[in-house]
Amino acid sequence: MMQANHPSLKSWVEVPKGSDFPIQNLPFGIFKTKYLSPVAGVAIGQHVLDLVYLHENAYLDGLGLPAGVFNQKYLNDFFALGRKTITAVRNRVSELLRHDNDEMTAAAREIALVPMAEVQMLMPVRVSNYTDFYSSEEHATNVGSMFRDPKNALLPNWKHLPVGYHGRASSIVVSGTDLHRPKGQIKPADAELPVYCPSRKVDFELEVAFITCTETKLGSSITTQQAEEHIAGLVLFNDWSARDIQQWEYVPLGPFLSKNFGSTLSPWVVTLDALEPFRVKGPEQLPHVLPYLSYEGARNFDIQLEVLLQAGKAEPTTVSRSNFKYMYWNMCQQLAHHTVNGCNIQVGDVYASGTISGPSPGSYGSMLELTWNGQKPLSMPDGTARQFIEDGDTVLIKGFAEKEGVRIGFGECKGRILPAL
Amino acid sequence: MMQANHPSLKSWVEVPKGSDFPIQNLPFGIFKTKYLSPVAGVAIGQHVLDLVYLHENAYLDGLGLPAGVFNQKYLNDFFALGRKTITAVRNRVSELLRHDNDEMTAAAREIALVPMAEVQMLMPVRVSNYTDFYSSEEHATNVGSMFRDPKNALLPNWKHLPVGYHGRASSIVVSGTDLHRPKGQIKPADAELPVYCPSRKVDFELEVAFITCTETKLGSSITTQQAEEHIAGLVLFNDWSARDIQQWEYVPLGPFLSKNFGSTLSPWVVTLDALEPFRVKGPEQLPHVLPYLSYEGARNFDIQLEVLLQAGKAEPTTVSRSNFKYMYWNMCQQLAHHTVNGCNIQVGDVYASGTISGPSPGSYGSMLELTWNGQKPLSMPDGTARQFIEDGDTVLIKGFAEKEGVRIGFGECKGRILPAL
Repeated sequence: MMQANHPSLKSWVEVPKGSDFPIQNLPFGIFKTKYLSPVAGVAIGQHVLDLVYLHENAYLDGLGLPAGVFNQKYLNDFFALGRKTITAVRNRVSELLRHDNDEMTAAAREIALVPMAEVQMLMPVRVSNYTDFYSSEEHATNVGSMFRDPKNALLPNWKHLPVGYHGRASSIVVSGTDLHRPKGQIKPADAELPVYCPSRKVDFELEVAFITCTETKLGSSITTQQAEEHIAGLVLFNDWSARDIQQWEYVPLGPFLSKNFGSTLSPWVVTLDALEPFRVKGPEQLPHVLPYLSYEGARNFDIQLEVLLQAGKAEPTTVSRSNFKYMYWNMCQQLAHHTVNGCNIQVGDVYASGTISGPSPGSYGSMLELTWNGQKPLSMPDGTARQFIEDGDTVLIKGFAEKEGVRIGFGECKGRILPAL
Repeated sequence: MMQANHPSLKSWVEVPKGSDFPIQNLPFGIFKTKYLSPVAGVAIGQHVLDLVYLHENAYLDGLGLPAGVFNQKYLNDFFALGRKTITAVRNRVSELLRHDNDEMTAAAREIALVPMAEVQMLMPVRVSNYTDFYSSEEHATNVGSMFRDPKNALLPNWKHLPVGYHGRASSIVVSGTDLHRPKGQIKPADAELPVYCPSRKVDFELEVAFITCTETKLGSSITTQQAEEHIAGLVLFNDWSARDIQQWEYVPLGPFLSKNFGSTLSPWVVTLDALEPFRVKGPEQLPHVLPYLSYEGARNFDIQLEVLLQAGKAEPTTVSRSNFKYMYWNMCQQLAHHTVNGCNIQVGDVYASGTISGPSPGSYGSMLELTWNGQKPLSMPDGTARQFIEDGDTVLIKGFAEKEGVRIGFGECKGRILPAL
């Protein structure tokens, strides 16, 4: 496996400097073109490698792949083959793309490589279930300070379990999909009764999500040690939120309409294999966690994250720089907790991290925190200011891991807020 | 449509007195037998009518049904044809089953009717999304009194919007599926730290759920007036809950592992058409609701509900009698609220009512309320007492609407709790 990650590895496909998609990455996605219905592909440089072509032309023989597994609208059936097969396909694609491999004929290279400029990326999976965690200590502390008590910002359960809740699967959309500002009930501080109007506090949440590749039986659990075998890969995730709707609706059963008007994910599923060199230790966990949440090894990942805000067609401006490594609870703990009661997981489930805020104000992962609930508006390059997201604004999340000149990137997770309907 | 509901209507199929499934009902479900893989059927008396046989033998011609639509593991594709088609199929089946209709030959009757004793009922739909509401005023008041303040039992938002939250779709199972007692974190009142153990407070929740038959576009909304066109029908629903896990985990984002270890639904989807004669007005809503939640007509349904508890193999004993008509928020309001922000719905979504408690203690829909959080244990016929559900206990929910000698029943929603794994 390390072979496919070796920093000196080069491809015969030209990969521009700074590309998110060198041969060491090879994430999976679903794309279509003017001529091609949705199929599975792998990103390499500025191209998408057509997996259907490779499969149909015997380049992936011997990997136990069923006929037609890539000729689908979603990666679910491919992911369902399991972590080992996903790894094997990535390794084989890596081999085929190496600078010194000439298995693919010139004609095959011409057909199988589609310029990114000519493709439209689609949802990588049909989302079976969606869970959102709340696993950044800095974020939970900021929110607790703002809305409860700065001295007791974290609730008593927070350091004992990875708090999470179920979200809406149907409204998860792929990067590039516009969303309308949600309408709903809000209760202004000075009003006696709630009003129905467009949200005035639309926000983004900077998150990373993992996608599962197995189906477990109801009643069974996954240990922290087993968890990574169930993870196909990671995507960037924007858990759009309407703070004013949230504040009025969320007691006692949690966020609902403030979240389910839409969540955006990036189209390329970056495998844990590609991220292997970027493992780091997570924060020390004190008080000690219960045994079912304890884990061994480095289970966090050093992935640099950036949020850019673009007003209309102006130049995007960076509003936050954070890192996935800040997560207090790692993915293995999240999955172990989620299944400790016997809850079953399915292929194509999306498990989002919760807002990833770092320790400094410039690393906060939401407008709520960056502007401290609107009290400190952000100055934009065009001279305007932002407390929250305005109509016509685009939020763009980028993420990449980088080491020894190799950059494992996620592409972008982009969404624009249109006026309320 | 009223024709199919006429109380004097009889079928040539023998329907025992007190059956849930007279010719006026005709609910849809998925069944299999020793010889038959899963297919769609309709309940009539003590038989299941095989819709695949009817369809393949031209009995359903002219209804615009695609080939193979009933030869499936789930009703989703059938339901996706929409409310009008569901109604048309029910009407046609009603016609075929009438005592004075001889279109079905003796041979056809013999083949198409399968005794219920020979079938296994399966999940009626592949659940796309699952939402649980909290729409019984009595239940919310009881819970608020127990855990907060009897004088301010309802939170300020409760009478302004139908509070709801997203649940886990993957762990919804069909009646008859055993579930293991969930393990998880609980924090005993006298302990400084949480412990990991099997839940000591497993509970049922008496609910009714509706299932949708349309796919809407993200960004669009459904009005209260349109809502029923999106509803295929109703099932009984047991939203199993682990109260001790819930109490520790639920702040600030709502119930999670306390609910997602399993929820049980009844296999027969009873159509709104069959329930048409049982419409009743809901409780007066004061303060007045916002215009998007206002509605016209009678949108509640008079459905009698009963919960029986069975200790091991003892005789089941009734522990609660309630009624779906008690709902403060009706289904039309729930669906209008759920989509007012543009959240899209999908075919096969399950929307549960929340625990349906009535005004008297004998009508409370959960052990939490019936025993007032364990303070007043229930006496069982075998001399034991119950604060919550014990290992080996079976919870059985029944429901039916009855008028002029016609009983529109739901069959049963049954589940047994096995010891923790």
